[in-house]
Amino acid sequence: MTVRRAYLDYNASAPLLPAARAAMLAALDLDANPSSVHIDGRAARKTVDVARRAVAALVNAKPEHVVFTSGATEAATTLLSPDWMMGRAPVRMARLVVCATDHPCILGGGRFPKDAVDVVGVDRNGIVDLVALEAMLQAHDRDDGLVMVALHAANNETGVIQPIAEIARLVKAHGGVLVVDAVQAAGRIPIDITDGYGDFLILSSHKIGGPMGVGAIVGTSDLMMPAPLIRGGGQEKGHRAGTENLPGIAGFGAAARAAHAGLGDTPGLAGVRDHLERSLLTMAPDAMIFGQSVERLCNTSFFAVPGLKAETAQIAFDLAGVSLSAGSACSSGKVGPSHVLKAMGVGDGTGALRVSIGRDTGEDDIAAFERALSAHLARRAVGSEAA
Amino acid sequence: MTVRRAYLDYNASAPLLPAARAAMLAALDLDANPSSVHIDGRAARKTVDVARRAVAALVNAKPEHVVFTSGATEAATTLLSPDWMMGRAPVRMARLVVCATDHPCILGGGRFPKDAVDVVGVDRNGIVDLVALEAMLQAHDRDDGLVMVALHAANNETGVIQPIAEIARLVKAHGGVLVVDAVQAAGRIPIDITDGYGDFLILSSHKIGGPMGVGAIVGTSDLMMPAPLIRGGGQEKGHRAGTENLPGIAGFGAAARAAHAGLGDTPGLAGVRDHLERSLLTMAPDAMIFGQSVERLCNTSFFAVPGLKAETAQIAFDLAGVSLSAGSACSSGKVGPSHVLKAMGVGDGTGALRVSIGRDTGEDDIAAFERALSAHLARRAVGSEAA
Repeated sequence: MTVRRAYLDYNASAPLLPAARAAMLAALDLDANPSSVHIDGRAARKTVDVARRAVAALVNAKPEHVVFTSGATEAATTLLSPDWMMGRAPVRMARLVVCATDHPCILGGGRFPKDAVDVVGVDRNGIVDLVALEAMLQAHDRDDGLVMVALHAANNETGVIQPIAEIARLVKAHGGVLVVDAVQAAGRIPIDITDGYGDFLILSSHKIGGPMGVGAIVGTSDLMMPAPLIRGGGQEKGHRAGTENLPGIAGFGAAARAAHAGLGDTPGLAGVRDHLERSLLTMAPDAMIFGQSVERLCNTSFFAVPGLKAETAQIAFDLAGVSLSAGSACSSGKVGPSHVLKAMGVGDGTGALRVSIGRDTGEDDIAAFERALSAHLARRAVGSEAA
Repeated sequence: MTVRRAYLDYNASAPLLPAARAAMLAALDLDANPSSVHIDGRAARKTVDVARRAVAALVNAKPEHVVFTSGATEAATTLLSPDWMMGRAPVRMARLVVCATDHPCILGGGRFPKDAVDVVGVDRNGIVDLVALEAMLQAHDRDDGLVMVALHAANNETGVIQPIAEIARLVKAHGGVLVVDAVQAAGRIPIDITDGYGDFLILSSHKIGGPMGVGAIVGTSDLMMPAPLIRGGGQEKGHRAGTENLPGIAGFGAAARAAHAGLGDTPGLAGVRDHLERSLLTMAPDAMIFGQSVERLCNTSFFAVPGLKAETAQIAFDLAGVSLSAGSACSSGKVGPSHVLKAMGVGDGTGALRVSIGRDTGEDDIAAFERALSAHLARRAVGSEAA
């Protein structure tokens, strides 16, 4: 018997949207290099341009300020560089400030030497410490070069949303550059890059229902750009060499269009998530839901039940047909303590599970979660009685 | 009336093979991050593993020595680095030798500083100058660090095949590391990495009938590896961070399997190319075919007809329904003089056209080429009589 599985791991990868799939299929038939000057090449080029406009529209940017990459990690490694260019003139970024709950691709500091990276902490709700951030910005000597701040708009584990507008004002006041990792926020909360939302955004296709293997850097301008990471061709105006991932970019564009159109659906998604959290608290009244008292993404719930080991629970859910995650999926199948919860000072995170949903999540998915949780809690109760 | 176009630009991008398309479609349904530990994630991981084995088999490598990248350009930028690691111990590459007719992503020197890069020339047939190469290797002081040689196995414009085995012996004798850009050679000539064919290969999916946006580094071992270019996640054993391009990798794997199986078809492909060249020489007896007197890829013809401007001719062919190329497609629609012909000392290349075919190229495609060439030559004749 094949039972439809409940996929509750959208923050690891959202299922491909039908529109994205259709756009990919159309692109697969183009069969030409977008840099070729013949008709076939120009048709491929047009597909890239259409996608570029859609990705730009999602965050109210100009299409010419979108640089396609192979994903968010490449985008982060490209942007987080001490070496930038203003036209042909080099610009030096002297220091980088990242946030303790950033994704590893930001937290690692990209191309900055380790000793040029400062880490700003967060409070118990996961909100960045603005006082500490301002102190770091003030301590920076502008004569050494510019300061860059890079942090996430919404956390991949907790869904907690950072006060980006406030951070952007602070960074601007100190003449710094703000890179916003909008990977989890894009398509889930409205983002307007022209409205004080940082200088550069990082986007990922497969978190918004597009295919894996494609992402973007989106800027407010291209006056100042990082030294290219991938070199040896004139693609993307020289900012990113290599033949474009044509089907990937086409799918990303279609997903961005769908995400843009679906931004109004937030209350519906939050309703499903809130239902799940009520069920959780009914079954396990001692459960902790992280970041619950601050603004979170409407699709994410990160929680721990005292005595429940995340690794064991994740396997139990998996066997019961429910895909969810113990922390994030970024480290090749490794399940370890959450650096996010550690930074929030709320335990070592070994007991935390993440549920992340999307527009296709239905009542049957939530019911499957409830059944699996109930069964696992019952086994735990029997286990502790026997012990 | 819609007439099927003749696509003769396989070296820019080969049409997607049906097997690659099918593998991509299957991967699109997987909908999970290969790093996720649940069943959905493990199915995605399995798809990556299957593709890895197929890509390894194409060049007789071990699957564990394949690192997937977003394409050949990323692979080249990764490998062409002064900073390498042997486990956790840093290894320094002091100098890089590239070949004058390399693809721009090799010729640019990757992450090496400009002054650490030497360029070795080629003869009039496009074959690397082995005497000059040996002199460069001898001049290098091993106390400064290792020397790396990076060059193409087969040229993207002329199809000329380099004596890789001989080059590998030379590089090995001087304790150097050899990186072979096998982008155009893979699937067209047999490559056995265990048989003295360099230390690392660069492969591209879309040149062998897979999708754009994926490539690989293939090594003889992973004892010594370049410092990762894209950082911030444990994917590809830490050699290349970022969620894997699942559909792209699946398509690449299927294309590699097909390319491997089709390696025996070489004589057939050469027959079609030779037919085309005979027609060319019949219509334009003064045509020059570059690299004709040495071993070339069976699918490539790079030629010039005196008095014929490549840019004009390319447009005329395009309007007549024939897609071919004036030089390579790597520089975003720009058509300029060929650096390959310049290095060969056979003119500035402004008149050169490239035809590159594949297994799907039929008699009707060649006939379309002949008709278009004949018409264009007739117009040229009328033009010069009138002048």
